[in-house]
Amino acid sequence: MPQLGLLPRKAWAALLSQILWSPYTACTRAVSSHSQVAEAVLTSQLNPNQEKSDFIIKTPKGTRDLSPQQMVVREKILGMVVSCFKRHGAKGLDTPAFELKELLTEKYGEDSVLIYDLKDQGGELLSLRYDLTVPFARYLAMNKVKKMKRYHIGKVWRRESPTIAQGRYREFYQCDFDIAGQFDPMIPDAECLKIMCEILSGLQLGDFLIKVNDRRILDGMFAVCGVPESKFRAICSSLDKLDKMSWKDVRHEMVTKKSLAPEVADRIGDYVQRHGGVSLVEQLFQDSRLSQNKQVLEGLRDLKLLFEYLTLFGIAEKISFDLSLARGLDYYTGVIYEAVFLQTPNQAGEESLRMGSVAAGGRYDGLVGMFDPKGHRVPCVGLSIGVERIFSIVEQRMKVFGEKVRTTETQVFVATPQKNFLQERLKLIAELWDAGIKAELLYKNNPKLLTQLHYCENMGIPLVVIIGEQEMKEGIIKLRSVASKEEVTIKREHLVAEIQKRLSDS
Amino acid sequence: MPQLGLLPRKAWAALLSQILWSPYTACTRAVSSHSQVAEAVLTSQLNPNQEKSDFIIKTPKGTRDLSPQQMVVREKILGMVVSCFKRHGAKGLDTPAFELKELLTEKYGEDSVLIYDLKDQGGELLSLRYDLTVPFARYLAMNKVKKMKRYHIGKVWRRESPTIAQGRYREFYQCDFDIAGQFDPMIPDAECLKIMCEILSGLQLGDFLIKVNDRRILDGMFAVCGVPESKFRAICSSLDKLDKMSWKDVRHEMVTKKSLAPEVADRIGDYVQRHGGVSLVEQLFQDSRLSQNKQVLEGLRDLKLLFEYLTLFGIAEKISFDLSLARGLDYYTGVIYEAVFLQTPNQAGEESLRMGSVAAGGRYDGLVGMFDPKGHRVPCVGLSIGVERIFSIVEQRMKVFGEKVRTTETQVFVATPQKNFLQERLKLIAELWDAGIKAELLYKNNPKLLTQLHYCENMGIPLVVIIGEQEMKEGIIKLRSVASKEEVTIKREHLVAEIQKRLSDS
Repeated sequence: MPQLGLLPRKAWAALLSQILWSPYTACTRAVSSHSQVAEAVLTSQLNPNQEKSDFIIKTPKGTRDLSPQQMVVREKILGMVVSCFKRHGAKGLDTPAFELKELLTEKYGEDSVLIYDLKDQGGELLSLRYDLTVPFARYLAMNKVKKMKRYHIGKVWRRESPTIAQGRYREFYQCDFDIAGQFDPMIPDAECLKIMCEILSGLQLGDFLIKVNDRRILDGMFAVCGVPESKFRAICSSLDKLDKMSWKDVRHEMVTKKSLAPEVADRIGDYVQRHGGVSLVEQLFQDSRLSQNKQVLEGLRDLKLLFEYLTLFGIAEKISFDLSLARGLDYYTGVIYEAVFLQTPNQAGEESLRMGSVAAGGRYDGLVGMFDPKGHRVPCVGLSIGVERIFSIVEQRMKVFGEKVRTTETQVFVATPQKNFLQERLKLIAELWDAGIKAELLYKNNPKLLTQLHYCENMGIPLVVIIGEQEMKEGIIKLRSVASKEEVTIKREHLVAEIQKRLSDS
Repeated sequence: MPQLGLLPRKAWAALLSQILWSPYTACTRAVSSHSQVAEAVLTSQLNPNQEKSDFIIKTPKGTRDLSPQQMVVREKILGMVVSCFKRHGAKGLDTPAFELKELLTEKYGEDSVLIYDLKDQGGELLSLRYDLTVPFARYLAMNKVKKMKRYHIGKVWRRESPTIAQGRYREFYQCDFDIAGQFDPMIPDAECLKIMCEILSGLQLGDFLIKVNDRRILDGMFAVCGVPESKFRAICSSLDKLDKMSWKDVRHEMVTKKSLAPEVADRIGDYVQRHGGVSLVEQLFQDSRLSQNKQVLEGLRDLKLLFEYLTLFGIAEKISFDLSLARGLDYYTGVIYEAVFLQTPNQAGEESLRMGSVAAGGRYDGLVGMFDPKGHRVPCVGLSIGVERIFSIVEQRMKVFGEKVRTTETQVFVATPQKNFLQERLKLIAELWDAGIKAELLYKNNPKLLTQLHYCENMGIPLVVIIGEQEMKEGIIKLRSVASKEEVTIKREHLVAEIQKRLSDS
């Protein structure tokens, strides 16, 4: 997927300035509403040869078009995200939309059923990518890259039963930043959390919290609680549902669906209620059962170091060590994290239930090795920004506050009050285009002046050039400001310079 | 697909400045070479449960990853293309990667066999989009949009037998600009050609020529030559191969494969040899047979008007009326065009054979109606920039002239000669990041100073901040220019300001 330029801070501020907080409940309405696209029954000549089949014109289930308004918001948000990734020295990378089917198997645990396969039309068996992480690992292994800091923005596809009201789509953008390579512990991990903080604060969408945990601590906890090792991943993905389900329901799933002994589930329950800062790390070092487990100790030691670095980065207070955080994906091996917006800081739990995560990631040291013939490992840590959720929030706020976004950047409109003046208008606008000025005219031989001026007002075009017979004769031209309705008369040959001056001043 | 910001002219100039013309033959070598990716046989734990299956790690046939170097080139070229589209008042739009299979049928003529279908996993039958035009028409019909000027940059997928040496991939970017709506004749059509000229000149990749023809003239020509109407589209797509095959071979295909009468083929042959400017239009008005055909006359009248507008736009000399231009796609109904780079202006034919088109488009007034239940028509005209070919040319030239592109934008590197100085480095770099400065450090507790300085030279990072015990004590810091190796000592608290000053100066 193509990348973006740096976002002019001004433009962004302008976009968000009037946008205040609006409850997320409203937000969900918006998402569902702009998914209710106009539909039309097609009874026409689609298959002229066969008998006409009634069928709905629509986008595939769980997908949608992005309107020009939505594109403007995306461009701004993605521009901000990319500029942050570049600020941290990331390179761009792109991979194909589909991969060899075999490459994607055994990577996503229970979610593998959500992978889109392509039809076998002869040749290779292919699947649409499910995320950007596995393709990145495949790229590293395939090209024997041992070290890389890259970002990737692109669409991924998942056959979710689309509860679009929750903003879940079957096609959506991912924005990933990953650091591959063997480095001293927790330095890249800390930078990933710093990046999440920079982006989430930069968006000015309210306060947020990042939950952190470690797969080794989870597995060690499972072990000491008496979960059979064969069930680790399955129990993990049950636990992952804690942000959507209550502990009671998760426990029920563990006991019934995953046939876990009730007392084992309860032991897990004792732990996963706990969260806090580095103090909780210290506390668990003292835990009689956990402190017996080698994996847990490794995890705790790293988390302690991580919090030290987070403090140096000045973001420690944004991070909460949360034993309930599991993350669904199989490939995580170390620290994992997930960010949520808070309506008010003291309602973290509740809010995260309502809203879901807006950024997440973790360490996956084994994934690249799975693709390497000799199993050579390339440790990786990364993050993914939940831009779709962020888009929904911003779009909804703009809706609530009646924000109007310009969907074009046209600076000058070429108008005339005269009949049969198309030739002059065409000559003039070509001159503006060739000077790099963004200009439009109406595709009519004889448009009414009023129609032309209304077009400018509706489209928010700031300047109008007006040319007529009289002006032609005198070698002059009228330049009109749409907002103030002021008109000045200038020499024809000074037009481009004058326009450029005005545009640079504004 | 995400969109791009305006390309800083300087950066672009810098990129292309040293790039001179290199023969296209060399270009093809490059494309094939960077498609020969490192491959690795996977004998590892991909399917730990099953017996290990040897299998190659690769991207699917006809696809490739885009390296950071390639991404930089793309970002610049796409930025330039988008800024031109915006200069002409276009809005952004995005559509899903796949569409309902039925929507794509009967749109692409013989090429329909190249469409990728998704596997039926229950639910709708889906296909990957083949171009961006049909989804645009679907969007207009579905949302009852009667007027729209939009651009769309995104990947499309075609199951070509990938002769990658010719730069043909199964996944590639399209950059489309289209004008939908009922307007006075040929004004939007002329603007599309103007846009193609602005982009192709802006790229500074050598001289180019745009061939123009009209489907009505083609059909009329077929009629007067005695082609049965049922064969129009089939003969059209044979004719379309004239840029890859000689007339002799095309004629052979028409006669044998499409069972066209030899004398009819020869009559076509007489016409399709001809090309020229507006003069040829006048000439054909006089042609005894063609002038009898109503469709031909309509087409000629529009072409005459088109050339009038192209003259006003100052691009008439770039356009050649060429009766051999057919365009493969079924949906064109009026003017069609195709741009080729010329090695030298007097070798147009030869060069176009070697190189293929780098931009193309035309008018398709019937497509939207095919999606509208009541068959309401929305006339459209548009263009598509062949960015993949353009990428290949630029990449090859950079290769030939050893151009090095920076793949990161890092401005400052934070270094230390001291052991155990990680904490200070982390505090310092966080300060830079928070000030919006692009900064990196090595993820090591105790890196060697030389290693750190080499990293800056290799990555082209202009500035290094050096901090050590002595500096700490005195509350100062060293700022070093990597290029000149000059070091200045400044007050610690002035660091950010000084860096920002230097960056804005450079």
